[in-house]
Amino acid sequence: MPRFDQPADPLFARINASIDFDRRLWPQDIEGSKAHARGLERIGVIDAGELAELVSGLDRVAGELDGGEFAFQADDEDIHMAIERRLTELVGPLGGKLHTARSRNDQVATDLALYVRARSQRARELVAELMGRLLAVAEAHRDWEMPGYTHLQRAQPVYLGHHLLAYFWMLARDAGRFAAAAAAAGEMPLGSGALAGLNWDLDRDRTAGELGFERPAANSIDAVSNRDFALDYLYAASVCATHLSRLGSEVVIWSSQEFGFCEPDDEFASGSSIMPQKKNPDAAELLRAKAPRVSAGLATLLGVMHALPLAYSKDLQEDKEAVFGAVDTIELGLEAAERMLAGLRFDRDRLAAAAGDEMAAATDVADLLVRRGMPFREAHGVVGGLVRTALERDISLSEIPAAELAGHSELLDDEYYEVLAEGTWLESKLSPGGTGSPRLNEQLEAARTALAALLGEGG
Amino acid sequence: MPRFDQPADPLFARINASIDFDRRLWPQDIEGSKAHARGLERIGVIDAGELAELVSGLDRVAGELDGGEFAFQADDEDIHMAIERRLTELVGPLGGKLHTARSRNDQVATDLALYVRARSQRARELVAELMGRLLAVAEAHRDWEMPGYTHLQRAQPVYLGHHLLAYFWMLARDAGRFAAAAAAAGEMPLGSGALAGLNWDLDRDRTAGELGFERPAANSIDAVSNRDFALDYLYAASVCATHLSRLGSEVVIWSSQEFGFCEPDDEFASGSSIMPQKKNPDAAELLRAKAPRVSAGLATLLGVMHALPLAYSKDLQEDKEAVFGAVDTIELGLEAAERMLAGLRFDRDRLAAAAGDEMAAATDVADLLVRRGMPFREAHGVVGGLVRTALERDISLSEIPAAELAGHSELLDDEYYEVLAEGTWLESKLSPGGTGSPRLNEQLEAARTALAALLGEGG
Amino acid sequence: MPRFDQPADPLFARINASIDFDRRLWPQDIEGSKAHARGLERIGVIDAGELAELVSGLDRVAGELDGGEFAFQADDEDIHMAIERRLTELVGPLGGKLHTARSRNDQVATDLALYVRARSQRARELVAELMGRLLAVAEAHRDWEMPGYTHLQRAQPVYLGHHLLAYFWMLARDAGRFAAAAAAAGEMPLGSGALAGLNWDLDRDRTAGELGFERPAANSIDAVSNRDFALDYLYAASVCATHLSRLGSEVVIWSSQEFGFCEPDDEFASGSSIMPQKKNPDAAELLRAKAPRVSAGLATLLGVMHALPLAYSKDLQEDKEAVFGAVDTIELGLEAAERMLAGLRFDRDRLAAAAGDEMAAATDVADLLVRRGMPFREAHGVVGGLVRTALERDISLSEIPAAELAGHSELLDDEYYEVLAEGTWLESKLSPGGTGSPRLNEQLEAARTALAALLGEGG
Amino acid sequence: MPRFDQPADPLFARINASIDFDRRLWPQDIEGSKAHARGLERIGVIDAGELAELVSGLDRVAGELDGGEFAFQADDEDIHMAIERRLTELVGPLGGKLHTARSRNDQVATDLALYVRARSQRARELVAELMGRLLAVAEAHRDWEMPGYTHLQRAQPVYLGHHLLAYFWMLARDAGRFAAAAAAAGEMPLGSGALAGLNWDLDRDRTAGELGFERPAANSIDAVSNRDFALDYLYAASVCATHLSRLGSEVVIWSSQEFGFCEPDDEFASGSSIMPQKKNPDAAELLRAKAPRVSAGLATLLGVMHALPLAYSKDLQEDKEAVFGAVDTIELGLEAAERMLAGLRFDRDRLAAAAGDEMAAATDVADLLVRRGMPFREAHGVVGGLVRTALERDISLSEIPAAELAGHSELLDDEYYEVLAEGTWLESKLSPGGTGSPRLNEQLEAARTALAALLGEGG
Repeated sequence: MPRFDQPADPLFARINASIDFDRRLWPQDIEGSKAHARGLERIGVIDAGELAELVSGLDRVAGELDGGEFAFQADDEDIHMAIERRLTELVGPLGGKLHTARSRNDQVATDLALYVRARSQRARELVAELMGRLLAVAEAHRDWEMPGYTHLQRAQPVYLGHHLLAYFWMLARDAGRFAAAAAAAGEMPLGSGALAGLNWDLDRDRTAGELGFERPAANSIDAVSNRDFALDYLYAASVCATHLSRLGSEVVIWSSQEFGFCEPDDEFASGSSIMPQKKNPDAAELLRAKAPRVSAGLATLLGVMHALPLAYSKDLQEDKEAVFGAVDTIELGLEAAERMLAGLRFDRDRLAAAAGDEMAAATDVADLLVRRGMPFREAHGVVGGLVRTALERDISLSEIPAAELAGHSELLDDEYYEVLAEGTWLESKLSPGGTGSPRLNEQLEAARTALAALLGEGG
Repeated sequence: MPRFDQPADPLFARINASIDFDRRLWPQDIEGSKAHARGLERIGVIDAGELAELVSGLDRVAGELDGGEFAFQADDEDIHMAIERRLTELVGPLGGKLHTARSRNDQVATDLALYVRARSQRARELVAELMGRLLAVAEAHRDWEMPGYTHLQRAQPVYLGHHLLAYFWMLARDAGRFAAAAAAAGEMPLGSGALAGLNWDLDRDRTAGELGFERPAANSIDAVSNRDFALDYLYAASVCATHLSRLGSEVVIWSSQEFGFCEPDDEFASGSSIMPQKKNPDAAELLRAKAPRVSAGLATLLGVMHALPLAYSKDLQEDKEAVFGAVDTIELGLEAAERMLAGLRFDRDRLAAAAGDEMAAATDVADLLVRRGMPFREAHGVVGGLVRTALERDISLSEIPAAELAGHSELLDDEYYEVLAEGTWLESKLSPGGTGSPRLNEQLEAARTALAALLGEGG
Repeated sequence: MPRFDQPADPLFARINASIDFDRRLWPQDIEGSKAHARGLERIGVIDAGELAELVSGLDRVAGELDGGEFAFQADDEDIHMAIERRLTELVGPLGGKLHTARSRNDQVATDLALYVRARSQRARELVAELMGRLLAVAEAHRDWEMPGYTHLQRAQPVYLGHHLLAYFWMLARDAGRFAAAAAAAGEMPLGSGALAGLNWDLDRDRTAGELGFERPAANSIDAVSNRDFALDYLYAASVCATHLSRLGSEVVIWSSQEFGFCEPDDEFASGSSIMPQKKNPDAAELLRAKAPRVSAGLATLLGVMHALPLAYSKDLQEDKEAVFGAVDTIELGLEAAERMLAGLRFDRDRLAAAAGDEMAAATDVADLLVRRGMPFREAHGVVGGLVRTALERDISLSEIPAAELAGHSELLDDEYYEVLAEGTWLESKLSPGGTGSPRLNEQLEAARTALAALLGEGG
Repeated sequence: MPRFDQPADPLFARINASIDFDRRLWPQDIEGSKAHARGLERIGVIDAGELAELVSGLDRVAGELDGGEFAFQADDEDIHMAIERRLTELVGPLGGKLHTARSRNDQVATDLALYVRARSQRARELVAELMGRLLAVAEAHRDWEMPGYTHLQRAQPVYLGHHLLAYFWMLARDAGRFAAAAAAAGEMPLGSGALAGLNWDLDRDRTAGELGFERPAANSIDAVSNRDFALDYLYAASVCATHLSRLGSEVVIWSSQEFGFCEPDDEFASGSSIMPQKKNPDAAELLRAKAPRVSAGLATLLGVMHALPLAYSKDLQEDKEAVFGAVDTIELGLEAAERMLAGLRFDRDRLAAAAGDEMAAATDVADLLVRRGMPFREAHGVVGGLVRTALERDISLSEIPAAELAGHSELLDDEYYEVLAEGTWLESKLSPGGTGSPRLNEQLEAARTALAALLGEGG
């Protein structure tokens, strides 16, 4: 920098440089620079020949970066300067015209917005693929009985397909959040200059259109200070990672010898360095483990933005590693979850055996009493008494002799035993959204429709 | 509970109870119970007379709660049980029918969704009010010059109105996030039972409509496990609080004697217990200080959801204090920000004096050279040399003698001094979204339109 | 405040006031004020009679606060002002002398340091009580076999007492962290004034001694800006809560019907509003659920301190709710964990049956081969082959016929079957710190010693 | 793994592998393996010749790693397997003996503990260096007057040396926290096996001594599940980074044109890509900006540990990137802070001019009244009235005519003007720890002593 009389201290260069991580933005930087060059040509800063030269030079730089042949230099403090430096080597002083009517502040914000927009779309695609897998696995297990849990205690039996669809709907909401992040990244910062706007009457609408933005940012100060779109992506990724962590957690628990509900494919498990018999559900554990890191990326950027005066401050450089880390983690997590699910084998017998626990029908007995006129709260009490009797004698509910039923309630008769006979409990769940087969079929249909709509939008 | 043979340990009761904080949900609980009672009547669980009795009883309970006359009892572990207990005192065993076809799991989720939906709407209104205030203050100061900053260093002058509008657009995005939270809370959990659905064919669409939901939740397991809508609210509040913290931080800095750009109203400042001369911008400091707490509420709920197996677990009880804390903080913060801004007095002279720093025109000089054909990067270097010359001699840029200009660049002539003459730098910012008056006027118009649309939607 | 000509705006008063939460500090404020009064008497600001009057007035205020008779007034913005206001009502203008040589900045910091110091000691006591309970339960189950897990897969059998002692050592480290927090709160801010020191030559060493501090803070600016001791407490509480969450998580899993390893006492469980059969381990779930909230309190205060200029800023008022919330949560959690453990019933038969899984001896077979000269890595492979053979034929390892053993390794003979015979696997764990009985007995002894030392220090 | 019949899915390999980041642990892994080999020789698993071969092989592997010549292979999932694989290539099947009596679980925990122990010591050294720099700069500016601030409002003047020493004491506490982390990492996991202990009677005390641990971990399950020492490091780094962020924030504010108190060295500043006049305090901004990221690393690991069942789970692999990120950030931050401070130039004239603000003496006037018998609270009111008078007439306090003084208080006389005469306000701060020169000299002496002690301990 000409106004300085000393070069940067090596330690300062180290803390200041972002090239180690922001080089990932090169495609966006090239794309943005080409669009900016076209804008400069439109207002006469460069002529058509110069434009062609710049574009061709930028394409050559892109080729070098893409091919891994780009020679980074020690004082390339960030990818933007590295590209401009190389461009100028290739096209001469003309390269120095490219930064007319542009500041690194609006350039960096634009590159990151383009990146977030693209990764949001990609995350949405991966979410849709995982939704597709969940739907397929749910359909294949639509009539497999399993215990439903609350408080990790057996509560009422459900179909495995119904349980898996719960994740489908979580992910459908994730898709919506990634779409919101993409929309938030739809305002183009470019053309805002350092903070105040520029001395040039740029056609920002046109450049925005060329770059796939929805519109130019309305306020130049906000444009260079704003990282809401990055927060929106980090938030979408945090919730999505949290959903995956719940799935991972369940697969870990279900894979234990005690549950024995499922077993990961050998391709998605690992052994022990000391115990030859072990087969560990590492992928499920890692799905579970990675949510805190993604949430911490969100916390980082919220923390950086906290109390930060306008407009651009160097602190904003901390946005990138948080976003990049989330992108890598969530994209890998979504892909891995899809593959892991594809290879998961469920054990129908063990699921069914666990689902057959007669205690799970206690609510159905209470509802029987309700149908005979007893207020539910009272019926709950009567059945609680039956449960206690069974527990004290270590017998099942259906082993309570008929002769004793009246002692609990005069409304109880042989239908009590019918209700307890396995098989009707799931189908008795008539309410919309419940696990009963007609309702589950409705839900599968709704899921197919929702997924088709999602795939249609993304197309 | 009839199946238990001992009452709860007092310590267990303490850690288990939520009545101290969830009593805030009583209006939602009453509303939900009335809608549920109507639903029970439709499927014949209760008759019209019973419905009328239940509704009237619930109204009486609501009256007691509203009037502060409700007598909470030691074993009212949560607001739902307290209301049912009192209802049954008032209407007798009929009160015990209300919990037919309902679990506390879907009841609690429904109450919280209703609450989040309402508070999201309220936050959106408060955001709109603050946007209105920002717009008014921006219009009143549309032509007040001030230095724009990057890195908290004077960069280029801007109009104060332009700077304030940056916050307007931040808040406009916040309004969108609160709207998303309201939409996310639009799916009704009620009718999902404990987790599996219910033995009753409830008309969930109708109940959803009565309660102002958009639709019933599609999957009963997801419905009782899902807290995404609470996360969405907490996220919207976190970003909004972070925006307010930036505003607070700037007001604190601007209120320092060194900046002297503004002074809070006496009504919005406080003194010192020891230093009689002090006038501290406490409100601005608190706006700054409260963002981490709101973000921590989001981190809490993300942490609670992490790795949590389906369906309902008691852990979800931790959702409420996080949400309630965020509601209180963000609603108070938005109101306080609006009032603080209304009373803030700006000092036009000090702002203008600071904006007159000639160094801020350095970019304009570089652009002058660009117009004469020099590549910007080279022009930047030439002006950097001029800056260094001025600094070394401790003179201003315009005090560099004309005779020396050619030594820096042959393209420099007397227009150099014209560019440096104060007053043209702001108006030269021609680009859309920039600070130049025509552009600022466009922006004010766009802001008025956006605010009107927002107010229209909310109506 | 005399320099202001308007009273505070009601909204400002709401955001500014801390009386709703800082009233909890009244005992510290009274204690600190009495010590300060004695200090003022020593330097002659007040005489002995005035001192007596102030002390007696403060005692009376304390009595009112303790008895719940203190009449808070609308403009008592914090507990410090409320106490001084009431004191002055009681003793007249003399009350106005108490604030000589004191600022609210050093007063507040002192009160909080006293509070943190006391609560750190209390947490340490509660940790020691829980350690005592863990030790007792471990001793009672020192020879109960259970499966040890890695990746929630059965790995190698261990004694339940050994497993429980893992928590003992975690808590021992927690005790150390609370001790560090107490030590960090050992520097007295009082006597630092607003930030610069005071115009009075106070004997700060003496006052520090009277208040139980270790020494006065060395630098007046640091003294009023420093909240490290509060962070230290929040950190100690965060790790401790995380330890409790691991314990809670294990109890939840172990209480599932599938594991069936333990059952909470009825006094520490709750039922379901809809399912009469349910017995839910709510206390364990809540132990699990509360760690994120405590960690979020730490994140809040770290966030508030981030980038905060010296010396005191109003932002620091946010320290208190974070600390108070952590105190309430961790103290209740420690007490509840101790009671929950006391009532937990383990099922020896189910534990033993699960521990008898022959696969868990695979490492022992590999070690047999090592003793016969085979490198461990090769032995691991041989046993892996045996495991695969058993899995493919759905037989146990000991059901592989003797005739086939040589096909896996010539070093295998009948001792193979001896190793697999249940019972020797635990006792073969000879290494210090391992589960073998002699080692476990050493460990129990070490635990008794550590606990005695801890109780001794605290006494 | 022999028990598996399929190789890992490539996607699983990607999510499972840690080699990209854990290769950093190679020195610890080599060191630990050599000590373990010596332990195996002592119990006869290998003989002296084999030990020599293993040690020499490990040294050769270390040489390759150190020299960058180590050829990583696609299926080297972590550094531990990579080293064992290479060792076996070099020494043949003997390499397979090294993993006798060791599991990756205790090996990984040991490597990380060694690493954390070393980096804690290093951080402590860097903290001491920064303390030394602060002390030197404080001594050089011991009598430079500047305004002290509360609420970023000028409060009372202090010496710059006094202000800087506030950071010295913060860092002294940081040194203590890093020492605590080093101590926490002083328990050796090695010898715990997978979780249950080992079939070999290892001399763990001796191995612990050789590796520089204080003692072996007491419980094998805790040993492989425990990451408290990593949390302790992350916490120490979080608070330290927060302290640096406060320093960075002040330097940013002080470097603004409005404050003009200091200017970073050219070597520690950067320019603007568009504005040739800019000199930005990037290093200070980055010191400010990096605290949230470090705190997020702590939040990540607390989140990962939350609710995690014992003993080892794959989730614990997430510990490393959190720790490594904190190490890189805090070590670079401490070094950069030291260099930045060394080059910072303070502007004595601007500091003095700002410190001369007469309003800052208001407390001294109040104390004058106190010395004449007026209760402080009343004196505060009197001076508040004088301040208001001055503000209303836009005059300074000393410009209030003598004739009017009595109207404010009969106790006021000409000493009022003496108190207001600049120069005595700082020296009147007599209290220990205050800014008065004798007290500041005491503090400098205490700082020198503390630093010497710290350097002595570390030696």
